[in-house]
Amino acid sequence: MRIRIDLAYDGAGFRGWAVQPGLRTVQGELQGALATVLRLPEVTVVVAGRTDAGVHARGQVVHADLPDDAVGTIGGRAGVTPYDALLRRLNGLLGTEVRVRGLAPAADGFDARFSAEWRRYAYRIVDAPRPVDPLVRGHVVAWRRPLDLDVMNLAARPLIGLHDFASFCRRREGATTLRTLMELTWSRDDAGVAVATVRADAFCHAMVRSMLGCLLAVGDGGQPPDWAGRILSAAVRDPLVKVAPAHGLTLEEVRYPADADVTAQAARTRRRRA
Amino acid sequence: MRIRIDLAYDGAGFRGWAVQPGLRTVQGELQGALATVLRLPEVTVVVAGRTDAGVHARGQVVHADLPDDAVGTIGGRAGVTPYDALLRRLNGLLGTEVRVRGLAPAADGFDARFSAEWRRYAYRIVDAPRPVDPLVRGHVVAWRRPLDLDVMNLAARPLIGLHDFASFCRRREGATTLRTLMELTWSRDDAGVAVATVRADAFCHAMVRSMLGCLLAVGDGGQPPDWAGRILSAAVRDPLVKVAPAHGLTLEEVRYPADADVTAQAARTRRRRA
Repeated sequence: MRIRIDLAYDGAGFRGWAVQPGLRTVQGELQGALATVLRLPEVTVVVAGRTDAGVHARGQVVHADLPDDAVGTIGGRAGVTPYDALLRRLNGLLGTEVRVRGLAPAADGFDARFSAEWRRYAYRIVDAPRPVDPLVRGHVVAWRRPLDLDVMNLAARPLIGLHDFASFCRRREGATTLRTLMELTWSRDDAGVAVATVRADAFCHAMVRSMLGCLLAVGDGGQPPDWAGRILSAAVRDPLVKVAPAHGLTLEEVRYPADADVTAQAARTRRRRA
Repeated sequence: MRIRIDLAYDGAGFRGWAVQPGLRTVQGELQGALATVLRLPEVTVVVAGRTDAGVHARGQVVHADLPDDAVGTIGGRAGVTPYDALLRRLNGLLGTEVRVRGLAPAADGFDARFSAEWRRYAYRIVDAPRPVDPLVRGHVVAWRRPLDLDVMNLAARPLIGLHDFASFCRRREGATTLRTLMELTWSRDDAGVAVATVRADAFCHAMVRSMLGCLLAVGDGGQPPDWAGRILSAAVRDPLVKVAPAHGLTLEEVRYPADADVTAQAARTRRRRA
């Protein structure tokens, strides 16, 4: 049987999502906690968005395939389902840096990675002369120069749509860098924090932070407004594009279709990636 | 000459506001940074709201009396006032846990402590079964039981107004415990966090967190709705009232009258406290 887990984490204390021998990673912590609570030798989870070291998540989604009887044996108080009992025990084991927000049987054909319609990230940055509120400094970046968000929004427009994002991706052998960017907009919240909303069917490695780094160089006057579009068209990585700092980035949401469509969506994604 | 400094801090790493020998405190850090930047042997600041260990601030205000020529000698780039230059150097010295948000000559007669009209605190808490967002866990408390905010608002009403808050204060010899509580309301923000707004002319020691601890016991069903009013009327501390955890509390704002009235306001406060 397959379960779906929704989770949030503060990425500061982790070497990213993916398990690495000897390093503390979110996947490693979660898999360890699942194995302990379920008394299984090993549990492997599949994630919607592999986050880099230092990147946070509020709306991360994973699935895990478990033996059919694994969850049913979890005891709980009257009125508490085995899934709720499992959620509570996981949160009891995990530190407060990682919180399981939801845990339930997955819909037939659900795949956390391939069934997703889109991923939405937020990037938060405070530009000079504003100081960063110390209470949110863990997920908000300080930028030394003022940012012109109007210019950044203008600069982002050529990136919207279906493109080869090779200029903004760390290449992986045999993997396509074609992606559909649905949204990339900057606005200020009530506290004056500049917030980017970035939404795409999927992102290749380093893509969000490379695009944002490019826009930040435009927004503080270091590059002209058409720079992002020209970098995209070049279709090769440009060393002038600096990857934006990790701790400003948060995976906010992964959107899936209705349960009846998750199998078809997964098939579509697999075809597109091939 | 007197300067006014507005500042924000994450209280987690400090043993409270007030200087204590051998301990890391916000006052100690700020005074040390001021003395270093101004090349003075010592600088003493007077604060609007002495915060306890672990309590945060976004809108803290202090004043400091400096030799007349102390700030004028601070060099800056063209177009940068000596006050802006001092602000930048302070923020360069202080860690990101403390940020100076503003720094300027104080109005004639301004006193950070005595000229204040009111102080406003926020208390943030997430009640079961919601998990605390890991990104804000430093200033949001997790509460194991669900809270009924309507009942808490009802329970808070008898506290509003001018009262002797001795039941909620750690006594100090010769100090009055008469205060005017202007507001104490609970509501939920967009993320479901229960937020208390607490506003008074001033607070005595432990008053905010004692009142909130009392209301939390009512809100999770541990005590009846009229409990807070009865505790207030008793005018003695009740060991059943637990002080709410420090890290949920943030000093959000200190309000002062218009510049022309700060002297009169300070005189009024001094008379009332005597």
